[in-house]
Amino acid sequence: MKHWHEECAVFGVYGDPEAGRMAYLGLYAQQHRGQESTGIVTCKNGKHIHHKGLGLVGEVFPEEELVRLKGEMGIGHCRYSTTGGNALTNTQPLTAQLFNGPVAIAHNGNVVNSDRIRDELKKSGAIFQGTNDTESFLHLIARSPKQDIIECIKEEAIRMDGAYSVVLLTQDKLVAFRDPKGFRPLSIGHRPLDDGGHSVVIASETCAFDLIGAKFVRDIEPGEIFWVDETGEHSVRFATEQKSAFCIFEHVYFSRPDSKVFGIGVYESRKEMGRYLARENPISADMVIPVPDSGVPAAIGYSEESGIPFEFGIIRNHYIGRTFIQPSQSIRSFGVKIKLNPQSELIRGKDVVIVDDSIVRGTTSRKIIALIRAAGARKVHMRIAAPPTKASCYYGVDTPETDQLIANQKSVDEICQFVGADSLAYLSMEGLMSSVQAGERGFCAACFGTPYPTELYLD
Amino acid sequence: MKHWHEECAVFGVYGDPEAGRMAYLGLYAQQHRGQESTGIVTCKNGKHIHHKGLGLVGEVFPEEELVRLKGEMGIGHCRYSTTGGNALTNTQPLTAQLFNGPVAIAHNGNVVNSDRIRDELKKSGAIFQGTNDTESFLHLIARSPKQDIIECIKEEAIRMDGAYSVVLLTQDKLVAFRDPKGFRPLSIGHRPLDDGGHSVVIASETCAFDLIGAKFVRDIEPGEIFWVDETGEHSVRFATEQKSAFCIFEHVYFSRPDSKVFGIGVYESRKEMGRYLARENPISADMVIPVPDSGVPAAIGYSEESGIPFEFGIIRNHYIGRTFIQPSQSIRSFGVKIKLNPQSELIRGKDVVIVDDSIVRGTTSRKIIALIRAAGARKVHMRIAAPPTKASCYYGVDTPETDQLIANQKSVDEICQFVGADSLAYLSMEGLMSSVQAGERGFCAACFGTPYPTELYLD
Amino acid sequence: MKHWHEECAVFGVYGDPEAGRMAYLGLYAQQHRGQESTGIVTCKNGKHIHHKGLGLVGEVFPEEELVRLKGEMGIGHCRYSTTGGNALTNTQPLTAQLFNGPVAIAHNGNVVNSDRIRDELKKSGAIFQGTNDTESFLHLIARSPKQDIIECIKEEAIRMDGAYSVVLLTQDKLVAFRDPKGFRPLSIGHRPLDDGGHSVVIASETCAFDLIGAKFVRDIEPGEIFWVDETGEHSVRFATEQKSAFCIFEHVYFSRPDSKVFGIGVYESRKEMGRYLARENPISADMVIPVPDSGVPAAIGYSEESGIPFEFGIIRNHYIGRTFIQPSQSIRSFGVKIKLNPQSELIRGKDVVIVDDSIVRGTTSRKIIALIRAAGARKVHMRIAAPPTKASCYYGVDTPETDQLIANQKSVDEICQFVGADSLAYLSMEGLMSSVQAGERGFCAACFGTPYPTELYLD
Amino acid sequence: MKHWHEECAVFGVYGDPEAGRMAYLGLYAQQHRGQESTGIVTCKNGKHIHHKGLGLVGEVFPEEELVRLKGEMGIGHCRYSTTGGNALTNTQPLTAQLFNGPVAIAHNGNVVNSDRIRDELKKSGAIFQGTNDTESFLHLIARSPKQDIIECIKEEAIRMDGAYSVVLLTQDKLVAFRDPKGFRPLSIGHRPLDDGGHSVVIASETCAFDLIGAKFVRDIEPGEIFWVDETGEHSVRFATEQKSAFCIFEHVYFSRPDSKVFGIGVYESRKEMGRYLARENPISADMVIPVPDSGVPAAIGYSEESGIPFEFGIIRNHYIGRTFIQPSQSIRSFGVKIKLNPQSELIRGKDVVIVDDSIVRGTTSRKIIALIRAAGARKVHMRIAAPPTKASCYYGVDTPETDQLIANQKSVDEICQFVGADSLAYLSMEGLMSSVQAGERGFCAACFGTPYPTELYLD
Repeated sequence: MKHWHEECAVFGVYGDPEAGRMAYLGLYAQQHRGQESTGIVTCKNGKHIHHKGLGLVGEVFPEEELVRLKGEMGIGHCRYSTTGGNALTNTQPLTAQLFNGPVAIAHNGNVVNSDRIRDELKKSGAIFQGTNDTESFLHLIARSPKQDIIECIKEEAIRMDGAYSVVLLTQDKLVAFRDPKGFRPLSIGHRPLDDGGHSVVIASETCAFDLIGAKFVRDIEPGEIFWVDETGEHSVRFATEQKSAFCIFEHVYFSRPDSKVFGIGVYESRKEMGRYLARENPISADMVIPVPDSGVPAAIGYSEESGIPFEFGIIRNHYIGRTFIQPSQSIRSFGVKIKLNPQSELIRGKDVVIVDDSIVRGTTSRKIIALIRAAGARKVHMRIAAPPTKASCYYGVDTPETDQLIANQKSVDEICQFVGADSLAYLSMEGLMSSVQAGERGFCAACFGTPYPTELYLD
Repeated sequence: MKHWHEECAVFGVYGDPEAGRMAYLGLYAQQHRGQESTGIVTCKNGKHIHHKGLGLVGEVFPEEELVRLKGEMGIGHCRYSTTGGNALTNTQPLTAQLFNGPVAIAHNGNVVNSDRIRDELKKSGAIFQGTNDTESFLHLIARSPKQDIIECIKEEAIRMDGAYSVVLLTQDKLVAFRDPKGFRPLSIGHRPLDDGGHSVVIASETCAFDLIGAKFVRDIEPGEIFWVDETGEHSVRFATEQKSAFCIFEHVYFSRPDSKVFGIGVYESRKEMGRYLARENPISADMVIPVPDSGVPAAIGYSEESGIPFEFGIIRNHYIGRTFIQPSQSIRSFGVKIKLNPQSELIRGKDVVIVDDSIVRGTTSRKIIALIRAAGARKVHMRIAAPPTKASCYYGVDTPETDQLIANQKSVDEICQFVGADSLAYLSMEGLMSSVQAGERGFCAACFGTPYPTELYLD
Repeated sequence: MKHWHEECAVFGVYGDPEAGRMAYLGLYAQQHRGQESTGIVTCKNGKHIHHKGLGLVGEVFPEEELVRLKGEMGIGHCRYSTTGGNALTNTQPLTAQLFNGPVAIAHNGNVVNSDRIRDELKKSGAIFQGTNDTESFLHLIARSPKQDIIECIKEEAIRMDGAYSVVLLTQDKLVAFRDPKGFRPLSIGHRPLDDGGHSVVIASETCAFDLIGAKFVRDIEPGEIFWVDETGEHSVRFATEQKSAFCIFEHVYFSRPDSKVFGIGVYESRKEMGRYLARENPISADMVIPVPDSGVPAAIGYSEESGIPFEFGIIRNHYIGRTFIQPSQSIRSFGVKIKLNPQSELIRGKDVVIVDDSIVRGTTSRKIIALIRAAGARKVHMRIAAPPTKASCYYGVDTPETDQLIANQKSVDEICQFVGADSLAYLSMEGLMSSVQAGERGFCAACFGTPYPTELYLD
Repeated sequence: MKHWHEECAVFGVYGDPEAGRMAYLGLYAQQHRGQESTGIVTCKNGKHIHHKGLGLVGEVFPEEELVRLKGEMGIGHCRYSTTGGNALTNTQPLTAQLFNGPVAIAHNGNVVNSDRIRDELKKSGAIFQGTNDTESFLHLIARSPKQDIIECIKEEAIRMDGAYSVVLLTQDKLVAFRDPKGFRPLSIGHRPLDDGGHSVVIASETCAFDLIGAKFVRDIEPGEIFWVDETGEHSVRFATEQKSAFCIFEHVYFSRPDSKVFGIGVYESRKEMGRYLARENPISADMVIPVPDSGVPAAIGYSEESGIPFEFGIIRNHYIGRTFIQPSQSIRSFGVKIKLNPQSELIRGKDVVIVDDSIVRGTTSRKIIALIRAAGARKVHMRIAAPPTKASCYYGVDTPETDQLIANQKSVDEICQFVGADSLAYLSMEGLMSSVQAGERGFCAACFGTPYPTELYLD
């Protein structure tokens, strides 16, 4: 069940006869990472062409805009936008005229010392249009004494603390870089061209490569600047190697199951979470039912491990638009029912295991369980394919305040009672880390209660 | 995989303080039956209020229109519209001023002797606005010598041959009736009201009842006229009982899995088709993969019966809009890939069984199999949870011409070769009929090659 | 000042390689006759193609719709639509499938026995979609025993009483006819083509001919049916000659000043009204100011005759859209001021004559005079270039109820006091009739208190 | 005839309970100064709220946006936007977060040393979003060492050379200032409030005051900074007094005739131009006809002085939208005819004087004269109520390149021949200056060939 909002997806392309359309498709495939606004900037003859708007990729870019987005390189962005009327100001990519030409930039993540950097910049006369981190970075580059853009980034990026996977377009280069801890994914691919060569593509998630027929080459390393220009592909580090802090929530919920994130397939890691969950928390039941769509792989894993049959017992209505109109009279559990409908013919009189990826406030889980009971289930066992969610994220995930997280207020037993389940169990931290084959690699699991990997600058 | 277009969904409501909103929700839940146009007519103080438009229910009805649709009774319709600029003319419900007041009408199905009736009516001076069957029926009523609308219907409905599940609204009545063979579903429900009473609702599919919290009461019988007015619920037959011709394709593809159609749950019947398919056509493989979303229940059944693990090996992108823009340069299998992405991490080096509901022209299946092979599968076995599709439907399903149906041109072996599978098998007619618990009840399976249950009037 | 709403403009074209675009332009030029909805139907290879919508001609017809409107003949319509959500149903041209093929029809005017005809038709089983007169006429044709459309019209048109200037399109003919009294204008023109020939065009007003470079040929006669087909132009009478009832208000307010209506230029007739007004009601003043735009020609005539200088003392804002948002706090005379602004630099300390075409309720005139006084005028003399408006129109003009017409409630002196003028005078009926060179020709001046030229069927 | 595009209108308001709506109305009244984009920023509790968009004021601001624009002070802007897809970036007011809070700014005019200022700013690390002058000024303020905004402006404004009438909004002040030569108008008004007090309003043109019921107080002086805050109205000079350079074209064409610009009514000055023109260039003719709407006052003046009757001989169609679709087949003079239609009934066989405000390229005048001849005129004498247009404007008027101005290429006789007139005459420079009562006051008439009042920085 969706209750987390990833902030963004980025995309970049270089040397492609259809750069604008590839950006369009690359964003399309990553639409799940942000549905409120989107933008593309391409570069043709040293000039930037851009189009941005509020809405889905398919709505914001009609054919005539794609025709206008000429050129062989470009970057794009999808955003889960902030509320309010000024949303368009924050829509990325941001574009600017610097002394050495136009620059466009888009990022995924959250810079934790952003306010400090902004304040310093404002004091020295910088003007800010919007409120996002990307704008600060533009100012850092603009003010850098270095003439060369790569040198600028090398010098200035290190001043930012936190999560940032960035794509940047100049008059002649596509640049991409990733924070030293590598919170958010960022991958490189090659798209074969008709002439036997290939274009270079960058994406937050590899599912974007699949759609445009590109091959995954490798991840951009934490602390690496990667760029492409007419002399080829280049790489340099701007930060020394350190313990990584890959976002575990990309595997738990964010990423598409058909993406390969931090070196491992997401569908596989989720199934593995389900298997661990079944081993750690066995129960006797007639069927395992996922909360669609995010709970599906873990439910399959749970079913496989437990031997309890998998059933698609809750049907999701995929025609839900963004402006659904409520009836004024109350219909019980209406808010959930408009999206999910349990199959009473299947469930009636049965003991069911419901598998979901997380419980945030608990109110949605409570409604789902009520629906399943109303559909006639005898017993409802809830299984969560991750540990209890205990802390807010400061690295680019839109989580509620810590005090609204039910796992921060109540014990597992109390949560079980609140959501109305016959039993409730979460996956252990060990099970989670094993599922993503963490091994020596560092993951950020701060949302599940482990220490934050950076200072938070919360004053 | 979607390749059939059901023509319509209907909905009716009587005695509900929020009739307009209930119609909205009832259509919303049935959106899968038609996405091109929709309309609602309510009745307030004997006056009809209507709103129609091209697009999804959520788009056509903004809040201000729902506010305008006052009254305690109403009917609504979703349509898979014909092409061309005149689509709005055919959008239902149709409304008309007759001598005894306003009448609105909406239907699901196709009347096979419609052209004959139209020609007769035109010869006697009737004017037609559009091209749909509903309009003929309006004329039949308008010209009936009977004053009472129920009497009119009783007399005139029998002149129509074919499939029609109809809802009709007058100044003081909600009427519903179903053709004598009952091709299309039509059910009655009761929605509990705050005052302890209930409103009466009519829908093509019972999933509409679930959303609005109504209880399924019974199906309207083939040949039955059912109506509600201030004196209560009434019923009368306009045709003598005969062998039914329930549309088997409602179970194979059309209906939502969480609906109960012709007395049996659709999810259950589809799982049963998968089980029969596994028994009739066993194969050794590493995993069973559904073509989402329609192949899912049958794949689960196949997996259960065969013991081969079920995997969600093809991910569907649910953000596909209706106006997707193609790249001008060719990307292999692009048309399918924009919607479906196989998971290569899962599939690579494996033998897979792909389960789908049908093969129409074979081109889509061919692309899907190519994608799965490109994702690294070793062997691809295709299993279709229905018999070969051999004939066009004349009762309300938008099928290709008979000569474009691959099963009409090629043997199963040839189809297997065409789609590029390692093996291909279809469900038997016996398996299909057992799956829907046909027993003595008649089903129309003309699309699978059994005789058409009515004359076709094709001259 | 605009306070009357003419119902419609019609247009027809035959034998033109760009029939759709000519209809578009012809309606564009006549946009002043109706701004709420518009539609065009063309005919290509015996098939009708249509497009209609709510809004201005320039909004309803984007390029892609004009491209779709192929064919060498067509008709079009602009409408001042009725209120309510069902406006699109009444948008013309109406189209229908009759036994002998498609027919499209559009009209200007109002049929006074329309309700009687409708009732008869409904009793015999006719279905009505909307509420306009055109639909009744379609039914009359559809039910006529005559096979030939011209014969049908000849027989049936005479059953309609009142005002109707009609254009009609079949598979092979453009037909136009005008009621026996000729209330509304309807003219024939020839548009020269590149091949040396010409197309035939029909319009409510001749200004449409000017825009498309057509020459005015003649008016269609009252009681005449005119048609064009592949054998050429034809004419026949369906009614015997009788005293005409040309609408005097076409000259007073409706028609564009650059049109020639009922054989005389509208600008000229209005100037003449101003001259008569000056002769009949002389006054001493510093300047003559028109209420723009309709009062301009009469004010020029008044100035010429009286020798008092003409000044454009009230400036009209032409950017007024249809949805102007009011301030919530009161601004004095705001409703008028948003449209009209008197020039205080010019007016201050002066005696002015304000010339307008009519006073309906008196409230707008009162506001205008208040504005002029606030701008510093010493004396304000109001002169109306027509007699007092005393009765509602039943022939196609949207006038207020008779009891809301101030001239029906108050004497000229009382009106003068109500509107706050220093003096007020109206044109005499004789002056009016002389201005339009009525001579022996009959004009309908029922709105000014002369008898209605037909029965009204008001029961 | 419109062939010049003024760049902008500005508006400001302080202390008004309906500041957002007053800005809306103030822009509405000034819509003639820019129709491509518009924006409003208000301030509520120290926070800025803004809304901008492409289109007319009435289109960009629906009711829900006006409701959102809360607060008692605000500024607004209308713009004749540059071409291209990035137009929204340049839409004003520009908003920014500076160290001491939010600032919004809007301007009318053109800064001639803008590129130099931009280059300097970019070199020192400033980032530019768009291409307009206002943005440079924001940077100058942001980088000023002064903390107080008025001090900043006092220090930095003087660095800009050229034309700028600016309104600026902070958290607690409305500020307005005007360049030292006062090229563009900028006036102060007071709007009476219900509580007996008044709000302060600023506008480019006084017609904005008329609409909202405000009284004109005085012009802001060239080189003056005027501001309002909770302590009242204040004024300070940032430049010493110098010879003014009031834009003469505001009187010739730009401003609305009902505005008072540079101390004199525009309608009056235009009439006076017509009178001078008649005295300087008498001719014998039957009527004087203005090219609507801009030629109207001068034609009235010409008629008065010459005694030749004034006639509204060319009718303008006011329903012209911005996207008019051309017929593919040629219609003679179509482009002009869609807007203007000469009245042949009036003109036929007559000698006419056509009065317009200017001839730019000569092509439009040629078409108008051709239309008038086609309408039957015997002789056509053209009179231009200004001297020949010889040079481009660099102070905010969108004129063609100098080499496209016909008066720069041809003698008056040659122009007369080119446009096809029987005679052609222009107003003298002396006549022009007398008409605006220039006296000792300096006017910029560079477009008519006098020296530019500032350096142009054209390298």
